[in-house]
Amino acid sequence: MLKFSYISHLYCPKCGNTFGTSEQHQVCTCGSPLLVTYDLEKMKKNVAPGEWGTRELTLWRYHELLPVEEEINVVSLGEGMTPLIPLRKLGNDMSIGSLYMKDEALIPTGTFKARGAAVGVSKAKEVGVKELVMPTNGNAGAAWALYAARAGIIATIVMPTDAPKINRNEIALSGANLYLVNGLISDAGKIVGKAVKDYNLYDASTLKEPYRIEGKKTMGLEIAEQLNWNMPDVILYPTGGGVGLIGIYKALNELKELGWVKGKLPRLVAVQSTGCAPIVEAWEEGKHESVFWKNSETVAFGINVPKALGDFLVLDAIYNTDGCAIAIDDESMLKEQEKVANMEGCFICPEGAATFAAIRSLRESGWVGQDETVVALNTGAGIKYPDIIEVSPGMLGKEDSINKLEPVYKGD
Amino acid sequence: MLKFSYISHLYCPKCGNTFGTSEQHQVCTCGSPLLVTYDLEKMKKNVAPGEWGTRELTLWRYHELLPVEEEINVVSLGEGMTPLIPLRKLGNDMSIGSLYMKDEALIPTGTFKARGAAVGVSKAKEVGVKELVMPTNGNAGAAWALYAARAGIIATIVMPTDAPKINRNEIALSGANLYLVNGLISDAGKIVGKAVKDYNLYDASTLKEPYRIEGKKTMGLEIAEQLNWNMPDVILYPTGGGVGLIGIYKALNELKELGWVKGKLPRLVAVQSTGCAPIVEAWEEGKHESVFWKNSETVAFGINVPKALGDFLVLDAIYNTDGCAIAIDDESMLKEQEKVANMEGCFICPEGAATFAAIRSLRESGWVGQDETVVALNTGAGIKYPDIIEVSPGMLGKEDSINKLEPVYKGD
Repeated sequence: MLKFSYISHLYCPKCGNTFGTSEQHQVCTCGSPLLVTYDLEKMKKNVAPGEWGTRELTLWRYHELLPVEEEINVVSLGEGMTPLIPLRKLGNDMSIGSLYMKDEALIPTGTFKARGAAVGVSKAKEVGVKELVMPTNGNAGAAWALYAARAGIIATIVMPTDAPKINRNEIALSGANLYLVNGLISDAGKIVGKAVKDYNLYDASTLKEPYRIEGKKTMGLEIAEQLNWNMPDVILYPTGGGVGLIGIYKALNELKELGWVKGKLPRLVAVQSTGCAPIVEAWEEGKHESVFWKNSETVAFGINVPKALGDFLVLDAIYNTDGCAIAIDDESMLKEQEKVANMEGCFICPEGAATFAAIRSLRESGWVGQDETVVALNTGAGIKYPDIIEVSPGMLGKEDSINKLEPVYKGD
Repeated sequence: MLKFSYISHLYCPKCGNTFGTSEQHQVCTCGSPLLVTYDLEKMKKNVAPGEWGTRELTLWRYHELLPVEEEINVVSLGEGMTPLIPLRKLGNDMSIGSLYMKDEALIPTGTFKARGAAVGVSKAKEVGVKELVMPTNGNAGAAWALYAARAGIIATIVMPTDAPKINRNEIALSGANLYLVNGLISDAGKIVGKAVKDYNLYDASTLKEPYRIEGKKTMGLEIAEQLNWNMPDVILYPTGGGVGLIGIYKALNELKELGWVKGKLPRLVAVQSTGCAPIVEAWEEGKHESVFWKNSETVAFGINVPKALGDFLVLDAIYNTDGCAIAIDDESMLKEQEKVANMEGCFICPEGAATFAAIRSLRESGWVGQDETVVALNTGAGIKYPDIIEVSPGMLGKEDSINKLEPVYKGD
């Protein structure tokens, strides 16, 4: 009989310990995040990549490489198969022949966090979780709260007071318990850690459950499928916790092991903000772990993560693919955000804009070649960040006319 | 040779006049909107519905039934093929066996306006438009500005000052000329009308160009394809200008003529706000045109349209399918918005919420039966309306704990 999932077991990338997949697990006994292994040998015999192309237009088309074992546990809002948009004008502007944007704005909740939440919540449901708790900078909490609502799981979300207000709406409307803490996400994390112990709750914090990575992994599967199972040369990812980058790396390795893609893996690039660049610092020093970044600050709230639990996995992915890490300042991000809207009609988030600023810089330095195929992740919709743009429209009374000789606002 | 489009000509549904499709057209000489006709007899011989299923995951998979004649003119950001999400819990709550939501949040710019803009801008490009102008309540202007940017067309957008602020960001960032008018959309329309004459610009106002309907039509094509070419019993649509409803009706009729769907067309329901219900009023009085609704007001900005140019087409679609028109008050809308988030994990827009409140009411009255298949259009993402939700989260200091005995916010 064909299996819905070829999941085999969980393993610890630090100490090698293994665990089963039918019970609830958080991190390894050694403190490291756990990763999922699949029985790729068996899968290879039963599934062909062409099959995937004929299935439903969600990330669940890849169910054999996802951890949910019974289809009935899938909690879906139609997430995945976001477009891979060719950006010819911006590519010309940067002297790159093949520039693509994977647009994660076109997904439930408007950010790629929906992928981790869809798969994470589905698997949580499968292993019997009734109540989960997590800290968030906003978008992840919103995604988990909404998917938990659909799954019938009670969610408690703790968020800094200065996280985006729009996320409060999403969380509160889902019926989750919403708490604001007058502090940073690390303070929210401490409160969550205490609640996990006090009430024996499922901890859905980044990388403290093993399945969010599997959801994010589907970005890599989709990029490969959308490029007809050819690898691009470079993939750039705005890196806070780095789960997406870890996931993309994992996906491409699994596809290679299945024999569905050939050749060299793309060079993976972690893009950070100059206001919070622990991975860049570690990479520049050739280290395999990062150091907590003090007084971090950036308009790109999603990559304001001073120390990621999976930093060593991110750095491994960069080193193993001859990739790099690069930091972008807020001004360059916002300039690039406008350029992408102006040239290509895409209103992207500042984190996504950082990846384009990074490409521009890496092209100028020659690290990215003119003939390379480059894929940038836009991790969310620009409309989720209403406050970072200043607009100076022309003001008219009811009886006024447009005077075309007037200088008009051109977005600068 | 296979044709990219089977477009034949434009015709006037009021006076019967016809026009070609290679030049720029606005409304008919009699003032009525123009509609597009296709050579369905010829198309039937060359295309099978199964072909569509294997194509790219955008609305352009239906290119034979779209007006763009050369593929090179297609301006796309990956729009279309939004999910048709089964809502089992909400269906149970209303005693409806098969309830679906067509989720137009998962599309560029976060609302269904992207469909009209993608097709409208593409065709504008094809007929040589260099500069367009339009009034907007917000979301349509944002979509047209961004697609125009991608197409290299200059856009000038006039919007009421009290339209949503998020739309200003989208328009300004696209590089469009943005004007705010201290008045209503009808005042913006007057300023646009004058600019069209003064500077000989292309008027992209609702139904003043013939191609926006064709973009909106794809919602109907997708619903049919996603239900395996079976018709639902009822489709509900939040109705302001009504272009989507006109388009869905047109699409289903074209599919019927092609022989790709069989049986009775679904009953089409126009959902309005009690604060602006000209179509409902006309339908209740059995009339074929609506009367300007004075002092209109509703939180659902997208359906605040006091008099639609295509009102007679909307009413025709309702009468011809044994549909109906129904008005929902703001309070019921907001209550339903919360219910959908709470039960199904979807943060929908107030216009979308109105359709669910309408289903609830029509089910209670018996107009919708328990065993019917019902499709509601959610026309946009809830995140585009940040100001209509009040949130009362729990407040914590850094050293506080979550006290599970405390009453926690449940979204009411």
